[in-house]
Amino acid sequence: MHSFAELSAKFETYFNKRHFPDTPATLYDAAQYILRIGGKRVRPVSVLMANELFGEITADAYSVALAIELFHNFSLIHDDIMDKAPLRRGMETVHTKYGDATALLAGDVMLVAAYEQLNNISHSKLHDILKLFSKTAREVCEGQQLDMDFEKQESVIFDDYLQMITLKTSVLLAASFKLGAILGGASAGNQDHLYEVGKYLGIAFQVQDDYLDAFGDPEKFGKQIGGDILANKKTFLLIHALSVVDEAQKKELTLLLNGNSEDKIERVLKIYSACKVGEWASTLKQTCLDKAIKHLEETAVLHSRKVEIENLARYLLQRES
Amino acid sequence: MHSFAELSAKFETYFNKRHFPDTPATLYDAAQYILRIGGKRVRPVSVLMANELFGEITADAYSVALAIELFHNFSLIHDDIMDKAPLRRGMETVHTKYGDATALLAGDVMLVAAYEQLNNISHSKLHDILKLFSKTAREVCEGQQLDMDFEKQESVIFDDYLQMITLKTSVLLAASFKLGAILGGASAGNQDHLYEVGKYLGIAFQVQDDYLDAFGDPEKFGKQIGGDILANKKTFLLIHALSVVDEAQKKELTLLLNGNSEDKIERVLKIYSACKVGEWASTLKQTCLDKAIKHLEETAVLHSRKVEIENLARYLLQRES
Repeated sequence: MHSFAELSAKFETYFNKRHFPDTPATLYDAAQYILRIGGKRVRPVSVLMANELFGEITADAYSVALAIELFHNFSLIHDDIMDKAPLRRGMETVHTKYGDATALLAGDVMLVAAYEQLNNISHSKLHDILKLFSKTAREVCEGQQLDMDFEKQESVIFDDYLQMITLKTSVLLAASFKLGAILGGASAGNQDHLYEVGKYLGIAFQVQDDYLDAFGDPEKFGKQIGGDILANKKTFLLIHALSVVDEAQKKELTLLLNGNSEDKIERVLKIYSACKVGEWASTLKQTCLDKAIKHLEETAVLHSRKVEIENLARYLLQRES
Repeated sequence: MHSFAELSAKFETYFNKRHFPDTPATLYDAAQYILRIGGKRVRPVSVLMANELFGEITADAYSVALAIELFHNFSLIHDDIMDKAPLRRGMETVHTKYGDATALLAGDVMLVAAYEQLNNISHSKLHDILKLFSKTAREVCEGQQLDMDFEKQESVIFDDYLQMITLKTSVLLAASFKLGAILGGASAGNQDHLYEVGKYLGIAFQVQDDYLDAFGDPEKFGKQIGGDILANKKTFLLIHALSVVDEAQKKELTLLLNGNSEDKIERVLKIYSACKVGEWASTLKQTCLDKAIKHLEETAVLHSRKVEIENLARYLLQRES
């Protein structure tokens, strides 16, 4: 069995090449650009790890891992256009560097390239793999639309927010695990357990990300603390806070959100602390992690084969919270 | 054998339903909207006609025809965003009605839906169908990028323009014919002939469209005459004119293109007439039509089975030129 670091290095070797023709360079240079600005490659490596649970990692698993990473980058390009985001990982976004029209097309061609990769796998598995991949792709689009819809709403209830985040970010990790399992010849039951592993890890990771944005150590987090608060972003923390605050706190929180006072971050954090949002988030993250681990335990393979996925869960969720 | 009109009616019955879930309505209503604003459905019916050359039309052919029509509408939504087009077939474009972000996502989900349709066909044909479909999808994106690149160039040579138009508009019709043939169990040779039939029909149709925009009868054409000239659009006519005009005409044409004089259309048309652009375009259209018919003749099936495709070619290219 290989560790996340080992498989990450293997995938990087496989991934680190030009994935598009030379011409038209105006289109394909833009598509290639985003693939070079990095990322942890958690999703493709999850395909490989789930695949290895059931035996040697197959060539098909590498094709599907690549398809997943291409799909992920397609969604980043298009999301950045929709969100008008100037930067990603400290680099210019594709539309900032190449213009909206080319970025839109580069995303399109990236999605097509993902399907082309899927078509490299053995014919007997193709239908099942395509089915899950397309279902997931559709759900990711639905999640992005719900996210945009929620931005226009005054209030969002927790269950709706959880569903949105699940679609927007967790189902792709869930599908990555399940796709690896399908290719490994896993039973339907094992496939479903691995889907749940990815889904709950994805949610736990998002809760952690929201938590660290508010309460993290600026040096370790690598981003500005309170960025979500400044941007009035709906997060697990804000959704929960709005559901537990008293009337006075709600009034203050609403005023703070609608304004841009200098001490906005500090005052919102004070309300978060008063209603123990941090403790609640830590508990939620732990609950999700526990569910992921439980589904991993229930996957019917030898425990020794599961250790590296447990390590991955710890690696993803190790940060102080 | 069925006529274009008969198959068009059959396809419409199959097509005329909601192709998306109810929610999120903000996303799927936008996707469904464009499917309802019509179109001649030439591409999906071509799948069916090519399929019928080789036997009874199969359920798989309907799935692929639907996938092709979904793909076509995906490309219309995204092209309209890129071109900032306010109207399509006299109706608001998707991004005008629903906003750029939702239109972008509606296009994405339409492309995924096309692949979902492909996944409904028999497993033994899936790999070959996907391969041609994805190659074509990629080429359509390349064509759109080249079109945008050419808009920024002072001059474009005929061969480059022809390649761009082939990618942007003809390969999808070519693929439609070939996909129908693949599903009909056609030999590789017959598949290739039918690809060429669609490709040359597509080019001939584009030449005719450009011609009618300049020289058509306004009542029959249904669009404003000279629209391409007013918009400084690169067309077969302009590209050819620029390559045959003398120095004085070139100077005048360039001045006209860079300006917005009231008699712009009239004066450009005068130059077109002086260098016999209309005659040249009629000849080019006829040459392409002849090539399409020749490839149809060389397709190894009984001549009686080909009559309806010949009729389709005449139907598409019957308009006065």
